[in-house]
Parts: sequence; C-alpha cells; structure tokens
Amino acid sequence: MKARIITIGDEILIGQIVDTNSAWLAEQLTLIGLQVDQMATISDTKEAIHAQLDAHVGKVDLMIFTGGLGPTQDDITKPALEEWFGGGWKTDQRVLDRVQAHFEERGIQMPPINAEQADIPAVCEVLFNAHGSAPGMLFERSGTVVVSMPGVPFEMKSIFTDELLPRLNVRLIDETVAHRTVHTQGIGESSLMEIITDWEARLRNEGLKLAYLPSVGAVRLRISGSGAHQATILGRIDAYIADLLPLIDDYAFGYDGDQLEEVVGKLLKREGLTLSVAESCTGGYIAHLLTSVAGSSTFFKGSITAYANEVKTQQLGVRAQDILDHGAVSEVVAIQMAEGVKRSLHTDFAIATTGIAGPDGGTPEKPVGTVWIGVAGPSRSFALRYRMGTNRERNIRKSALQALQLLRKEILKEIGISFQKALIE
Amino acid sequence: MKARIITIGDEILIGQIVDTNSAWLAEQLTLIGLQVDQMATISDTKEAIHAQLDAHVGKVDLMIFTGGLGPTQDDITKPALEEWFGGGWKTDQRVLDRVQAHFEERGIQMPPINAEQADIPAVCEVLFNAHGSAPGMLFERSGTVVVSMPGVPFEMKSIFTDELLPRLNVRLIDETVAHRTVHTQGIGESSLMEIITDWEARLRNEGLKLAYLPSVGAVRLRISGSGAHQATILGRIDAYIADLLPLIDDYAFGYDGDQLEEVVGKLLKREGLTLSVAESCTGGYIAHLLTSVAGSSTFFKGSITAYANEVKTQQLGVRAQDILDHGAVSEVVAIQMAEGVKRSLHTDFAIATTGIAGPDGGTPEKPVGTVWIGVAGPSRSFALRYRMGTNRERNIRKSALQALQLLRKEILKEIGISFQKALIE
Repeated sequence: MKARIITIGDEILIGQIVDTNSAWLAEQLTLIGLQVDQMATISDTKEAIHAQLDAHVGKVDLMIFTGGLGPTQDDITKPALEEWFGGGWKTDQRVLDRVQAHFEERGIQMPPINAEQADIPAVCEVLFNAHGSAPGMLFERSGTVVVSMPGVPFEMKSIFTDELLPRLNVRLIDETVAHRTVHTQGIGESSLMEIITDWEARLRNEGLKLAYLPSVGAVRLRISGSGAHQATILGRIDAYIADLLPLIDDYAFGYDGDQLEEVVGKLLKREGLTLSVAESCTGGYIAHLLTSVAGSSTFFKGSITAYANEVKTQQLGVRAQDILDHGAVSEVVAIQMAEGVKRSLHTDFAIATTGIAGPDGGTPEKPVGTVWIGVAGPSRSFALRYRMGTNRERNIRKSALQALQLLRKEILKEIGISFQKALIE
Repeated sequence: MKARIITIGDEILIGQIVDTNSAWLAEQLTLIGLQVDQMATISDTKEAIHAQLDAHVGKVDLMIFTGGLGPTQDDITKPALEEWFGGGWKTDQRVLDRVQAHFEERGIQMPPINAEQADIPAVCEVLFNAHGSAPGMLFERSGTVVVSMPGVPFEMKSIFTDELLPRLNVRLIDETVAHRTVHTQGIGESSLMEIITDWEARLRNEGLKLAYLPSVGAVRLRISGSGAHQATILGRIDAYIADLLPLIDDYAFGYDGDQLEEVVGKLLKREGLTLSVAESCTGGYIAHLLTSVAGSSTFFKGSITAYANEVKTQQLGVRAQDILDHGAVSEVVAIQMAEGVKRSLHTDFAIATTGIAGPDGGTPEKPVGTVWIGVAGPSRSFALRYRMGTNRERNIRKSALQALQLLRKEILKEIGISFQKALIE
C-alpha cells in the first residue's frame, strides 16, 4: 500500500515555515502499515495541484494534500480539486452551522467569504473539522483515495485521527496495526540495544517490530504488531513489555504520550508531595519544564537559580569554605544546594544541579559536561556525577532530564513502590 | 531562475525526523533571487534519485539534493549520481586528507569504508566539507546545475555558504541580492503594517522588498534589494532603516542574527551591570533564555521562581497583606518581586513576572493571559500590565520576551542612550 503526502504552500517554498505536518502524517501512515514513498511541497496554484493528481492518481493507494484551504483568495486547493474531479458543488449544512457558530461565539457577524467554506465539491465525502471552519475532503478515483485537509497542525491531526483513520481502516487496511511506546532516559541507543538484544530477537521471532527513536537524553522504544484485533495485538505487546521492564529498570519512565516532567508531576500530585529546585548549570530549565505543564502549582513551590557563588552561599546556605575546598561543581555543593532549597522553600523533595555546561569553564579534572546532580528527600540526601558531553544546549537538557529521573526514583523508594510497579500502575 | 530541493532519506519518509534543511535552503535560495517551485523527499534508492534527474534536468536551473552521503551501505546517492552522469571515478586527495586527519585526531585507525568517501564521480566539482568527511558535489548537464550535499545540517549549511554560494553567483545569478533584518517585539504583524504603511510604500517604489516574518511574540522585518554591488544595496537599505527606526522605536531591538536575550546580555556585559530575575508565571523560562547564551555568568547572578505565594513573601519580601488585598497578579506584587530579588541577590537590575498563564485560574477581572511585568533598576521601579492570550506555552514565551524588552529599555534610559542610538551602535 503506497501513499504520497503533498503539502501546498508558498510560505514553505520560500523557507518561512518548516513543514512539520508531513513528518507527523508519515509516522501515522507508517504505523498503520502504509508505505510513504514520496513527499512533496508544491506551490499554491491550480496547475501544481493538477500536475500531482495527473501523475499519481491510479498509481498510488493514497494521496494526502494538506494546506491551501483557508478563506482567503490565496487558497485555491478546493476549486482546483473540484475542477479536476468534476461534478459541481454542494453546500454542507453541518459545516455551515459550524462556521456560523464559530462567529456567533465571538460575537462577530459572519463575513460572506466564510459562508463559502461550507461549499464543497459534490463528489467528495466531508471529513468534519471540529476545531476550524475549513473541512477535510475525501475523493476516490481509479483506486486512489485522495484526501485534502487544512494545514493548521491541530486541525489536521484531529481530522486525521477522528475522521480519516476510520475510513482508511475500511478502505485500505487489511489488518489492524497497534503499537506501544516505552520511554527511557539516561542510556544511549547502542547501550540499550546491547542490554535488550536477546529480548529483541524473541520479539522479532514472534513477528513483532521494534524501533529505536532517540532524542537528546532519551530513547523511545516503539513495539508494533499487526493482526485482526487491536486488543489481541496489544495483549501480545504488553506481555513482551512485562519481560522488558526488568532489563531496563534503571531507565524506563513511561509509555506512549508521557513526558518525564509530567510523570514526575503526576506522582508528586498523587502523593500530595511538594518540590523545589536549585539550579546552577541548568539555569532555570528544570523549573521551566515543570511549569510548562498546567496545574504544576499544586506540587511545585519554586526554585532558586544560583548562577553566582554568592547566591549559592546566601540563598541556599552552601558553605563558602566547601566551594573553596571542592569547587562549585562538586558533590558537597550539589547536596547542600538541594538541602538548602528544600529547607528555604519548605518542600518534601528538592533537586539541584551544578556543572560545566560549556563551551568554556572546563579543566582537566572537570571537563566541560561534568555535572553533579543532588537530591534531597525526607530521609536522605545524595549527589551523583555525570559526564554529559560538550554541547551547551544538549548538556542543559540532558542534565534536567537526569535530575527529574533521579527524583522520580527517590520518590518511589521513599513511598515504597518499585520502579516496575510504578510503570505498571 | 527555478530551483528544486530534494531530500533523500527513508528516516524522513517514516516520520522519524522532521526535515529542516529544506526550509533553510529555500530561504537562502529565495534571498538570492531563485524561485523554489517544488520540494520533494524521496527514498534512499537509485531509482528514486534517477527519476528526479530524468524529470528535472534540462527543465530547472538548479537541483539541490541533500542526504544519503554517509559511509554506510544505506547511502547510495553518490553511486546513483555517478551512474546517471557517467564518466567513472576519481580520488580527491584533499577529501582523503580530511578524512584521515579526522580519524587521527580521535586516535582511531581509519576503517577502509571511510577511505571510499574520497572517491567521487570524475565529472563533478568537489564542494569541500570542512566539518565532515562526506564532500558536496556539483554537476552540470543541459543547463541545470545539480548539487549533492550531506544531510547533517551544520555540514550542509557550511558547504552551501562557503562553497556553493560563490559558484552559484558566477553561474546563475545576474545580480547580487542583499538583505537586512530588523527584529521587533511587542507588536503584532497587522499593527506593525499600519504603522509603517507609508514607509513601506516608499520602500517598494524604490524597488526594495519587504517581508514580515512573524513568530511567537516577535515579528522580523526583512528588507531586500538587488543590484550590481552588495555594498551599494546595503547602503540603500540602511538609509531606509534609518527612516524606519523612529516609527518603531518602542519595538525594534536588533538586526539579522540577534536574539533579544543576547542583545540584553551584551548590553549588561558592556556596561558592567548585573541582573536577577523573579518569576511566577514564566516559571524559570526567563532564566533559561538568559543562561542559554554562553558567558551569561558575567552579568546574570541568579533568579527565584516564586510559584507559591509563601515563596513570594519569604524569599522575595512581598507583603502578604498586599497579596490578600490586590492578588498575586497585581502591580504592587510585580514591583515588590522585582525589588525583592534585586535586593536579595545584590544586582543592579531585576525583572519580575506574575500572571495567569492558563488554561485555568482566570477570573472575569483577571482573565487567562493577564500578566504584570515588574522592573527594578538603580533609580526606580515600575510594573506594566499585558494581555497575552489563552495559550499557556505562548503566554510564557511572550511574557518572557516582553520582560526582556522592558529591561533593555530601562537599562538604556538609565545609562542615557536613546533606543535608536543603541540600535545604530
């Protein structure tokens, strides 16, 4: 089953916007077993759209167009499709109601140009857009399903998931594909591969697939399988995940859409615990990650970014003599920073970072990338040393994720839940 | 002059990677006056590469391939190009030396597979890669320049700028195109358009072009022109910018590659001034922006993220009664937060944010997006109120940029430099 993804938009051809829709769509199509053999970005013209239809209809199973569906005169995708497929126009009442309601909510008279958004080619099937006024459309010709969706990412994603996917399952997909993602932190792709090599071989023998998806400081493992029923496939995958978890106990932290900062936040919230942070090399990034999640004020009381040593001593109570004796990047300072912020901000747990983010400031004993992470909890405090590498931006991100992971484990130890049990819950 | 950008890579077709190279290349090509009429992403196969060459050589002026040039067996771009253009192979000594030196530096014996990176099609011109082992290649056939570059972004960008651009200027570009970007913050695209409408008309009458490039909380204005000599064009552009600055005095903060956090950092460093930050709704993001820039420890002493009210009172000295009387999101609290962190951390300047980032926590009087930004300097303190909108992520970014802009202006006022003079310096 072959698919093509075509993005329409001059703003992409002049480099004003990076196209992220295509990668998202490609991932979704790959997951349901379709093979994307080409992506293209074309100009906002009738000729360019017709050239794609002329070239590929009858040769691929699915063509997805995104973009070019707004109400302004620049957007000519809809008339171009009507002209190519023929059959004239119809008005879709559900779309018209949606557009009118949208303007009524905002107390604005609907401009006539927006009423036209409900006019659609008579031969197409409407893919309802719950989040915007431009509907998606589905055509069929010569064995090819042709789909057009707006380019606004959250509108496109919701139309794809709620409207298109069920129709593709009926039309194109013989078997169901299901998948589960396990998130790891603190281990590289190749080390992970070594640890799970036997498990991976058994998984593959069973006809399941594994993909390593690395990003800065984290690797996702995506396990997928196909069959007649989703529940059966997921059951098989989950049995393998149960065997996987003991192997990667030190690294796994969540599934599917989970983010480490959300996982930690939910855990703190559920247990009624509070957190504070003391940051040197991460410079506020841990606090930023935690507060990016709505509702973080229930567990996060605040943080102190102690870039200058005098802030470490005066605000966090780090002993000046210890900084002189051991340096600001040291075990004792990391521990005192964590304990200091925990005491000052009256929280149950605290984490602290002190390190050399780079590119300057390294020494032979403490090269760029050396980071101490401190954790303070109700029963104990400790710090661990890491070597993160030489890139400043990556060091900051890796150190922040590592600190959140150490915190997560310390909370679980404190409340007496094993890492695997926390993941299974 | 027409150009096509073709990305080679199965990892993009399965959605594992978002292609950012194409947007960067499209922007660069547009700037030198080439029109990108299509972009494509194709599979890592000889057939797919040959299909592109068959279809477009002789029809467009420039084809740029990126990707598929690594040393592993997956990468077949080079043999595919050699087969299509013919002419056999040659060894490029400069590339061979580069690859050998790379392995010697790391104390590793060069694997034979890497020596092959110096073998290139005999009919191509080498585009030297100063940052990696895979060279770029330039071919010409039937009036089309065909270029292949590695997909690693920083290698590709450096080959494009240092090796390809001078050759394109000779082969394809009749006139030089030059441009200057002016950065603004705190004004939307349409309001900006209204303010500068007359200036824009004069600019266009003079044959210069203007592009509005909006992002969250900021709009870049790119002015470009063409002619025989770069210095002459830039001189004309700069004369127009001199007329522009008084119109957008409240918003402009820099040129070309400038970032607001860097502009503020450089100003503080140059004047020997120090900064601290107190954050509530921005949750550490301002500190993160400032410390993303290497060398920030010379002016940034630290910050206090005061998410809980008790942190505002205990760490920042905000009066509890004022929080009761006016709410945490208020003018008095914003001012006391800025003054408090300035006093505690002993700095010359301080900024503070307190607001409702959303999605929850809004009231009729203080809806989601209400933000107070406080500034404290050597001579005075004040706070201003903003309405940022309803999206949490965007609110955080917009508030942070607005705080940095207010700070920048206050520093300039304090040291007696006009905003325009600061920009011209």
